[in-house]
Amino acid sequence: MKRQFAVIGLGRFGGSMCKALSDQGLEVLAIDVDEERVNEYASIATHAVVADSTDEAVMKSLGIRNVEHVIVAIGENIQASILTTLLLKEIGIEKITVKAQNDYHEKVLVKIGANRIIHPERDMGVRIAHQVVSKNILDYLEISNEYTVAEVSVTDEISGKTIRELNLRATYGCNIVAMKRNENILVSPSADQQLSLHDVLIMIGAERDLARFENSI
Amino acid sequence: MKRQFAVIGLGRFGGSMCKALSDQGLEVLAIDVDEERVNEYASIATHAVVADSTDEAVMKSLGIRNVEHVIVAIGENIQASILTTLLLKEIGIEKITVKAQNDYHEKVLVKIGANRIIHPERDMGVRIAHQVVSKNILDYLEISNEYTVAEVSVTDEISGKTIRELNLRATYGCNIVAMKRNENILVSPSADQQLSLHDVLIMIGAERDLARFENSI
Ligand SMILES: Nc1ncnc2c1ncn2[C@@H]1O[C@H](COP(=O)(O)OP(=O)(O)OP(=O)(O)O)[C@@H](O)[C@H]1O
Ligand SMILES: Nc1ncnc2c1ncn2[C@@H]1O[C@H](COP(=O)(O)OP(=O)(O)OP(=O)(O)O)[C@@H](O)[C@H]1O
Ligand SMILES: [Ca+2]
Ligand SMILES: [Ca+2]
Ligand SMILES: [Ca+2]
Ligand SMILES: [Ca+2]
Repeated sequence: MKRQFAVIGLGRFGGSMCKALSDQGLEVLAIDVDEERVNEYASIATHAVVADSTDEAVMKSLGIRNVEHVIVAIGENIQASILTTLLLKEIGIEKITVKAQNDYHEKVLVKIGANRIIHPERDMGVRIAHQVVSKNILDYLEISNEYTVAEVSVTDEISGKTIRELNLRATYGCNIVAMKRNENILVSPSADQQLSLHDVLIMIGAERDLARFENSI
Repeated sequence: MKRQFAVIGLGRFGGSMCKALSDQGLEVLAIDVDEERVNEYASIATHAVVADSTDEAVMKSLGIRNVEHVIVAIGENIQASILTTLLLKEIGIEKITVKAQNDYHEKVLVKIGANRIIHPERDMGVRIAHQVVSKNILDYLEISNEYTVAEVSVTDEISGKTIRELNLRATYGCNIVAMKRNENILVSPSADQQLSLHDVLIMIGAERDLARFENSI
């Protein structure tokens, strides 16, 4: 049987989740009170339904019980978001992910048993802040409190050098995991590999060490 | 001289950027028309000012000219967002990052010369969709159209095995870059390393190959 997901609330966040889940070939039940929004997702989701998710009878009739994971992406109407989450818990949905508007909203959601709370705007703010600060770090993945995997673009300063010449491990305690040239990825490049302007280095190291390296190039 | 940033619009996205930039020790000028929001960031930003960012005289008097990078995080009022961006271009700000509400908004922003356009809700929707689909992939970084670095949690299925026994390179074409146990990171773990439940593997490979591996454990 195919895995079933439901997305309640088709704003920008919920709509984007609905599309991304459908793109991955999954069954998605899309729900919104707003008919226009539902129409927008009619050809994207497996089923797109106009419904008020706080209405228990309607939700049961939609077979929400069979859904593995429900995403509640209702925005401004915090009360509807909380009521919907409560209802889903009562129905016995195993995994409920909810978009929170603020800390108060999050606290209530935790208390009533939401499995995962998301603050899309807040999290993206932190991400983008990291990106605008560093001139050469294109994107990154935090893997622990201390360690990060980062995409670092090769500058004038280091283009033409070999990886060996960067002396990364000794000077910065960082390692190159892979290198990207155009769209080609070279995993574990050799120490003799020469760098060109606009190559991207995929590096691993402590955040402060990566920052030291990035500031030096 | 310290690097200067400005954030215009202190909603959840702009507020979060303001805080994250300040946390990194940078000078941040925070601007909003809403006095309450400005007060909230008075102790976080270097300067927090109540101002309408579409007012040229006011903006010039704030010394916005000296700012290296301005982030326009005005939301619903698309017209104010566009006018502000135009004004910043005219003043000669070098880097302007703008939050867009929709595709139409983005098109206009590109046309008037915004350097980077961000869709926080949409981007986070795609990110979270990836995370809810895979049971063991905790987070990931796309490094090319094809390749991804992913955090994969060790399951019952493979705990107790050594890395050699996973036969990753031959069977899946993937590599382990690092391993996390509790908060400790081990870069380039040896093939003899034994896995424990809840260890996290930091892996690199083509997205479809990582998915094949993840589905097999
Ligand atoms: N009770 C409800 N049942 C179903 N859908 C609802 C309910 N209440 C609100 N919604 C829908 O949730 C969607 C998202 O809500 P809203 O637009 O307030 O969020 P938002 O945070 O501005 O969204 P985003 O920032 O992701 O664009 C809307 O399309 C709205 O119609
Ligand atoms: N002309 C303006 N000058 C300065 N600030 C403005 C202007 N117009 C709007 N703002 C401010 O921009 C902020 C963000 O706008 P809004 O709340 O509409 O965005 P939002 O998309 O809902 O935010 P988020 O989703 O990030 O919480 C608000 O605090 C608002 O007061
Ligand atoms: Ca909104
Ligand atoms: Ca929003
Ligand atoms: Ca992480
Ligand atoms: Ca990327």
